[in-house]
Amino acid sequence: MLTPKQCATRLSEGDQILLLCHKNPDGDTVGCAFALFYALTAMGKQARVACADPLPKKYAFLYPDYMPEVDPKMVVAVDVASQAQLGSLAEDYADRIDLCIDHHGTNTHYAKEDLVVASAAAATEIVAEILNEMGEVWTPQIAECIYTGLSSDTGCFRYTNTTINTYHCAANMIEKGADSGKINLILFETKSRSRVALESRVLSQLQYEFDGMVAFAVISQEILKETGATEEEIDGIASLPRTIEGVQIAVTLRERDPRQYRVSIRTKGRFDAAMMCRQFGGGGHSAAAGCTIDDTLENALDRLRAVIAACLEGER
Amino acid sequence: MLTPKQCATRLSEGDQILLLCHKNPDGDTVGCAFALFYALTAMGKQARVACADPLPKKYAFLYPDYMPEVDPKMVVAVDVASQAQLGSLAEDYADRIDLCIDHHGTNTHYAKEDLVVASAAAATEIVAEILNEMGEVWTPQIAECIYTGLSSDTGCFRYTNTTINTYHCAANMIEKGADSGKINLILFETKSRSRVALESRVLSQLQYEFDGMVAFAVISQEILKETGATEEEIDGIASLPRTIEGVQIAVTLRERDPRQYRVSIRTKGRFDAAMMCRQFGGGGHSAAAGCTIDDTLENALDRLRAVIAACLEGER
Repeated sequence: MLTPKQCATRLSEGDQILLLCHKNPDGDTVGCAFALFYALTAMGKQARVACADPLPKKYAFLYPDYMPEVDPKMVVAVDVASQAQLGSLAEDYADRIDLCIDHHGTNTHYAKEDLVVASAAAATEIVAEILNEMGEVWTPQIAECIYTGLSSDTGCFRYTNTTINTYHCAANMIEKGADSGKINLILFETKSRSRVALESRVLSQLQYEFDGMVAFAVISQEILKETGATEEEIDGIASLPRTIEGVQIAVTLRERDPRQYRVSIRTKGRFDAAMMCRQFGGGGHSAAAGCTIDDTLENALDRLRAVIAACLEGER
Repeated sequence: MLTPKQCATRLSEGDQILLLCHKNPDGDTVGCAFALFYALTAMGKQARVACADPLPKKYAFLYPDYMPEVDPKMVVAVDVASQAQLGSLAEDYADRIDLCIDHHGTNTHYAKEDLVVASAAAATEIVAEILNEMGEVWTPQIAECIYTGLSSDTGCFRYTNTTINTYHCAANMIEKGADSGKINLILFETKSRSRVALESRVLSQLQYEFDGMVAFAVISQEILKETGATEEEIDGIASLPRTIEGVQIAVTLRERDPRQYRVSIRTKGRFDAAMMCRQFGGGGHSAAAGCTIDDTLENALDRLRAVIAACLEGER
């Protein structure tokens, strides 16, 4: 494992640097990649950000007007827990990642060198330390990249992964010019009408099971069609049922097709979402994880119930 | 205006101290009052917290097991912008407030002495400074009181009132023992099933007007009855419509009776909610304010539309 200073040295010595985000990109992976992009570009290096999936429009305020093509001499993965998380980029790059900067405890250490800090609330918290070691690279734009990662991975400082360091880091980013009000408005306070309609529909149809300790939400293609919600608008819906009193485990199933469901599990307290998702080939964090189940809704629900029952049983 | 140090001196010299919250108490007024209660009690003084309305159960983790009766020799109002905000306590105490600690820009300076810092995100941010001047009074319980005020008045560090100081203050409170994860779970991540049903109902019936810039939500007695939601559960519903894309002004009308509506206005950006509410005898902050309109729903809506039209007109 490298130190932040060693990461800074590696980056300072590199050029033609390709920065890889994880698939289904979120504010943390995007924030890491562009923070490094701006810092490296300002140092006169060629850098480029790549991701298997389109970058969400929501984070457009972080994107540069122009990124050069690079012939990668150094490949850096940010917030990417495993090679599988590279999505379609895995084919070209899975075995040639020079450096990985990540905060997932489940990181598989696939890179030649890495810095994995599981106690960091966001990977941008680690990138901020690396940037501090790189000297006077800070700009308001870089600070906004870092802040976006902090805020999006902590649900705006709401989740239990938030630490003293996260708050201090956020304060420092504002000092360096991040407009936290603007960013949080974009991340959390702006929903499309169709997203609001989707929330309202999903919440009105929740299924409570296991004495109200588990809530299941199903987002069918029909609901998506009726509300007009896009893939991007579904993001975050998974966290909603967890907020209900008594619910310890919130399970959201999103229909990809009638025999494939994308499952998100969100837990409170001691229940390990990553452990449950790993049984279906997925992964994530203790409080938030995901997997894909290739089965009918009925069967997917039954298989999830079995895993949840075992998890609840193990806690008794 | 006093300095924090002078406030600390006044409190250190006082005894039989009555701490007054504003009516419809929120996490900030409650956090201020109990932070001071614990600090003063630990200094061997008699203190008591009073409020015109019952203290919400949500904040029960802040409440002491026992409060002595006091024969008030010093009366302190916390987070109370005006005498009217004392509610039914105004009768006994409105003209004998010795000290007011507040962060409302609209504070009417009704107290004999006060410390009003409009730039503070929460009144507990000011109380924290006063406690720092009082010496080694900090306990984890006091830190939780302060953190609760910070988090609840900023929507968990989400609103534009959040400053660098708010983040540093939050980090300091965690260092002093506040369990931020627990607190935010209670404040923001815990909704009763009836609250969820209420949200779902209110969101499905929003009225968009003024080219989608204004959203009206009505919480009728009928909706409350159907969902089983309590007064306490209605708190915060007013912020929901503001989150919708394009909505600049969110207006929530809560039916008290068919001829009385409690109105909450939440705005984005440049629209002044307090200014609009003042026209109906209410007040608050620029982005969040309230008033009561004694009229039918139809008329209340019309009168609000007129004020909103003028406000939108003024911005052109």
